[in-house]
Amino acid sequence: MSIYQSLKEQVYEANMEIPRQKLAIYTFGNVSGIDRKAGVVGIKPSGVPYDNLKPSDIVIVDLDNQLVEGNMRPSSDTKTHTLLYKHFEHIGGVCHTHSTYAVAWAQAMRPIPNMGTTHADHLVAAVPVTDVMTDEMITGDYELETGNQILNIFKELNLSPEEVEMVLVACHGPFTWGKDPAKAVYNATVLEELAKMAHLTLTINPNTPTIKQTLIDKHYFRKHGKNAYYGQGC
Amino acid sequence: MSIYQSLKEQVYEANMEIPRQKLAIYTFGNVSGIDRKAGVVGIKPSGVPYDNLKPSDIVIVDLDNQLVEGNMRPSSDTKTHTLLYKHFEHIGGVCHTHSTYAVAWAQAMRPIPNMGTTHADHLVAAVPVTDVMTDEMITGDYELETGNQILNIFKELNLSPEEVEMVLVACHGPFTWGKDPAKAVYNATVLEELAKMAHLTLTINPNTPTIKQTLIDKHYFRKHGKNAYYGQGC
Amino acid sequence: MSIYQSLKEQVYEANMEIPRQKLAIYTFGNVSGIDRKAGVVGIKPSGVPYDNLKPSDIVIVDLDNQLVEGNMRPSSDTKTHTLLYKHFEHIGGVCHTHSTYAVAWAQAMRPIPNMGTTHADHLVAAVPVTDVMTDEMITGDYELETGNQILNIFKELNLSPEEVEMVLVACHGPFTWGKDPAKAVYNATVLEELAKMAHLTLTINPNTPTIKQTLIDKHYFRKHGKNAYYGQGC
Amino acid sequence: MSIYQSLKEQVYEANMEIPRQKLAIYTFGNVSGIDRKAGVVGIKPSGVPYDNLKPSDIVIVDLDNQLVEGNMRPSSDTKTHTLLYKHFEHIGGVCHTHSTYAVAWAQAMRPIPNMGTTHADHLVAAVPVTDVMTDEMITGDYELETGNQILNIFKELNLSPEEVEMVLVACHGPFTWGKDPAKAVYNATVLEELAKMAHLTLTINPNTPTIKQTLIDKHYFRKHGKNAYYGQGC
Repeated sequence: MSIYQSLKEQVYEANMEIPRQKLAIYTFGNVSGIDRKAGVVGIKPSGVPYDNLKPSDIVIVDLDNQLVEGNMRPSSDTKTHTLLYKHFEHIGGVCHTHSTYAVAWAQAMRPIPNMGTTHADHLVAAVPVTDVMTDEMITGDYELETGNQILNIFKELNLSPEEVEMVLVACHGPFTWGKDPAKAVYNATVLEELAKMAHLTLTINPNTPTIKQTLIDKHYFRKHGKNAYYGQGC
Repeated sequence: MSIYQSLKEQVYEANMEIPRQKLAIYTFGNVSGIDRKAGVVGIKPSGVPYDNLKPSDIVIVDLDNQLVEGNMRPSSDTKTHTLLYKHFEHIGGVCHTHSTYAVAWAQAMRPIPNMGTTHADHLVAAVPVTDVMTDEMITGDYELETGNQILNIFKELNLSPEEVEMVLVACHGPFTWGKDPAKAVYNATVLEELAKMAHLTLTINPNTPTIKQTLIDKHYFRKHGKNAYYGQGC
Repeated sequence: MSIYQSLKEQVYEANMEIPRQKLAIYTFGNVSGIDRKAGVVGIKPSGVPYDNLKPSDIVIVDLDNQLVEGNMRPSSDTKTHTLLYKHFEHIGGVCHTHSTYAVAWAQAMRPIPNMGTTHADHLVAAVPVTDVMTDEMITGDYELETGNQILNIFKELNLSPEEVEMVLVACHGPFTWGKDPAKAVYNATVLEELAKMAHLTLTINPNTPTIKQTLIDKHYFRKHGKNAYYGQGC
Repeated sequence: MSIYQSLKEQVYEANMEIPRQKLAIYTFGNVSGIDRKAGVVGIKPSGVPYDNLKPSDIVIVDLDNQLVEGNMRPSSDTKTHTLLYKHFEHIGGVCHTHSTYAVAWAQAMRPIPNMGTTHADHLVAAVPVTDVMTDEMITGDYELETGNQILNIFKELNLSPEEVEMVLVACHGPFTWGKDPAKAVYNATVLEELAKMAHLTLTINPNTPTIKQTLIDKHYFRKHGKNAYYGQGC
């Protein structure tokens, strides 16, 4: 049995949430998880349908994207995942989907505005959208540059990856993360719901304002941080 | 066995309707029920996924929000529920969800107009939307003030909580109620359907008028009140 | 065993298609069937959830709406159904739902235009919408007048109930019919799909024209009439 | 046992994906497959519901649409399928559905623009839409002319049927194809998702541009062609 068995199972379970939550069709999407002590990442193999996926299929790579264990090629988005793990030091899982409403916002190149408490329960800001990549980035190390675009927009907007655990890559789709692979895919489901709610809200009232800062703070901090009183504290 | 066993089971069953009717994802949403003789309210514990919920998890509190029985923290929305029970004297259940279309109307801060008989079968008026809370309310006793905003809009519009069993809290989402917990969650499902129908109606014809008062009365009173002839009278 | 057992089973089966095809929530909607030889109609009892419905619950009434057999009250829409059977002499089943998209068009009081072959496969015209009822009709024999509004629009537009097996009652929702109860509910499903397609088509291109008459004729008559060559002729 | 047993099973399996992927209701839609060595096509029989379909029901015809084996009439769209097999020499399967969003674009007579990488992962161009047929074509050999309209638009736009495996027939709906029947129906599912994403994208930002050519090339050629590195190469 692999010494990475536990990581593989955690990553496998999180990947299987993608079809269960209807976040992607066929083989689209992928979730990874990191074992920071061992310095390895477990990630979905490329192009394998969820129905066929087994825990032992999860590919183990190091943070330089070198194969450590596995019989299949890792997801072609691996370099994006590992770059996020290198720079967002407190995250334990990353998820990428092509969920319908989040992709629509990414294609429209519009950040998802924070217009209600469902959004504020999960993040303090609009869901950011990266810049479109330059031709040099696209024809260069594309998947690495996808990760760089995410880092760039977080720097530009001065966002914390602990307070904003999701992003839209322009013309592409969402990446989400969290303390572990399960939380990363949870955030992907939440993002899809926020994307749908925001779309509907703006068709009902195109002039809907962003909610007030006091309400954002109230909802975000009753769930997060040291004074949280929402949930069972686990 | 708890002396509140029957209340707990009724509240548990109503909560389980939330995922069955797809009114919320993960742990979002909560239903409560009241035993007016015993003066206690049973409510969903905070942050527990529906898949894990058991009847014995239902938390019993009194109308002053004091814990009477239970091992978990009650829903963080408990104060909103108990305030409604205190002021709406004939209701037996309260339901709060983040259902997608109802949230969109709440975020858009628009009442849902009564444009057809599906709506008139259930309530005589537009679904009201509260005012946005002041900063004082938000930073004060937030969940209690959420309830006060509901009471305020009912007073302002002179609505009866027996004839209008649903409301949208601005920037947040729907609260519904009824004679028991099952009816409260039934109303949440109906509200979501009305919210979707109204959204579609206005995209097809933005100038759709409210239906005539005679048609509202006909549909509402053939189902409700002493001359009702719709349903099996139970 | 009832001498209407076969009718009851046919009507029961057709009613159960309503939740299977997601055409209505809870107790909304009803299907009836007629035994023209016996001069009786079988119809869903009022206010019974589909989960509890049994073939023996189907209520038998005559064409004057008098109870012939059954322990429950017939659907409150019974008079609409029987009026249609009296005037549309070749139909064998009637279905009424509150399906979401069809209701939206009915509330918007707009006929559903024939913009493609999915529509033309099933009917030659736009799906008609009745006039809004007068106050006299509403406060009079309401459910009978609902039927009269359907007859009126068919006369006004010179439509054949064999070629157009569906209608929208303004501010209310769809009625459909066919040679038997199964065909009536089939048409309700088709109508919901046409309503959704038309809504989407007009959001993509608000100036989409009606399709040409030659294409309507081609699609309608390859499926219907004596030169039909579509389907297995049964 | 039929000497076409393997073809029949492949075509049967692909047809059953239509209801599983919710690409059509009732009997709508059909998939075919070709055995190029034997010069025969297997196709769904006309008007048979998916629930009743068996592998032995698949009808075998030759490329001149003559019945080779089968007890039922082949799909009325057979001539469209066989024309595509004659002219698109490398394809092994064809699929036709009435999926909701793809039909809406076909009715709106608008090509689906390439606005993101989900689209570019599958094809290099906008999804083309044919011209509306002339009255002569409609009243002539209609199903053959449907195929001719597809060939015409591919010639006009200089598209390769290997690089663009999907098309919208104006006022009608989608046809898709691929190396085998399974790939044809896979493309039908992808097309429906692209159609929905594009619709939503344009409601969020009506001025969304087409994505840059470098990004189209990057995504298309990392999955397709001799330098592909996406998927497991199978």
